[in-house]
Amino acid sequence: MKAINLQEKFSKFDEYWTPKIIAESNGQYVKISKVKGEFVWHDHKNEDELFIIIKGKLLIQFRDREVELNAGEIYVVPRGEEHRPVAEEETHILFIEPKETKHTGEIKSNLTVDLTDLEWI
Amino acid sequence: MKAINLQEKFSKFDEYWTPKIIAESNGQYVKISKVKGEFVWHDHKNEDELFIIIKGKLLIQFRDREVELNAGEIYVVPRGEEHRPVAEEETHILFIEPKETKHTGEIKSNLTVDLTDLEWI
Repeated sequence: MKAINLQEKFSKFDEYWTPKIIAESNGQYVKISKVKGEFVWHDHKNEDELFIIIKGKLLIQFRDREVELNAGEIYVVPRGEEHRPVAEEETHILFIEPKETKHTGEIKSNLTVDLTDLEWI
Repeated sequence: MKAINLQEKFSKFDEYWTPKIIAESNGQYVKISKVKGEFVWHDHKNEDELFIIIKGKLLIQFRDREVELNAGEIYVVPRGEEHRPVAEEETHILFIEPKETKHTGEIKSNLTVDLTDLEWI
């Protein structure tokens, strides 16, 4: 395995809200996405979701609060908590979650990428 | 939980090779360390170790190879593989591993911080 360079990985795709897998560790995938606009409200019943903002700004809305994350900031969305990521500008995120985590939870939307369609880059 | 700002967390301590916990997700800790010089050869029998380099340069030596990691680069040290991190200059790393992972494995050295002494910052 070689060093995984984040900028090089982000340069490989342009589409928004489509997670790409870049590494695996302890049964979890390390994924990256470019995001812009509003995602869908969803939760993950049994999995926490660790976000690291690489570039831009991500707002994570919860039903009772919201958290603004800038580049160099980290947040853990606790399992079972409904949330919606929103980005005004193009934002690059890294996130780590169990391999079985579906990015839109049990919600099916036009943004949903099935687990079987997840791509390693 | 508030956004966790990496620069703010790194500003809270100066010592080298003493992991600080900044978050927990899915039974794993997110830790940061400032490192400089040579660590000890060790392995983690049952746990992978995910490194993200925030600043500086980290060399990870294995018995049969070495991997140089710069800021913005990621590497997963596979479970069971003996390794030694080395940093010529002060380097800031983020790493994610199961809560039960000992940073020097089963080796006891003067750099070892016992699990019970790990500090949240």
